Amino acid sequence: MTEKLSEETRKTLLQPLYDMGWSMVDDRDAIAKTFKFADFADAFGWMTRAAIWAEKWGHHPEWDNTYNTVNVVLTTHDVDGLSALDVKLARKMDGLAG
Amino acid sequence: MTEKLSEETRKTLLQPLYDMGWSMVDDRDAIAKTFKFADFADAFGWMTRAAIWAEKWGHHPEWDNTYNTVNVVLTTHDVDGLSALDVKLARKMDGLAG
Repeated sequence: MTEKLSEETRKTLLQPLYDMGWSMVDDRDAIAKTFKFADFADAFGWMTRAAIWAEKWGHHPEWDNTYNTVNVVLTTHDVDGLSALDVKLARKMDGLAG
Repeated sequence: MTEKLSEETRKTLLQPLYDMGWSMVDDRDAIAKTFKFADFADAFGWMTRAAIWAEKWGHHPEWDNTYNTVNVVLTTHDVDGLSALDVKLARKMDGLAG
């Protein structure tokens, strides 16, 4: 079962994501990051690769795209907050963008 | 050259889009529509098909996706408002969703 991150666990798991440019969303237990790409094709290509992992893991982002920019918000609706799935997807998104 | 829609032209071109669920965005010369799909794979599959047309035409949407929902805003930055390209892309998006 997916569980909400404990206070102890989140310190360990979230700091490396903060270091990668993720931040907590105001008034939500969710993390966000803005990804910038060379152009639309590059941005949407990255979204497509991320989408395949999201679908494979049954865990989907909230995201918007305008040209070369993608804003991502990750949270786990089932637990009304952050779970390990968000950390996993955030790391994958960073890896795919890297 | 891309030109902003004239008052006369926009009446003719926009009414069929309003009939399809598009509406004007508040405080912007832009049109918007929310597309609903069966699930994430269906929503993102549609986005992918629309993205290919957008890239082909060099005219890109502002859009966000959460699971089975995609909110689209179309406008033409070069003319600071609606152009025929927005109408063309809106029709294509409707066609791809239909």
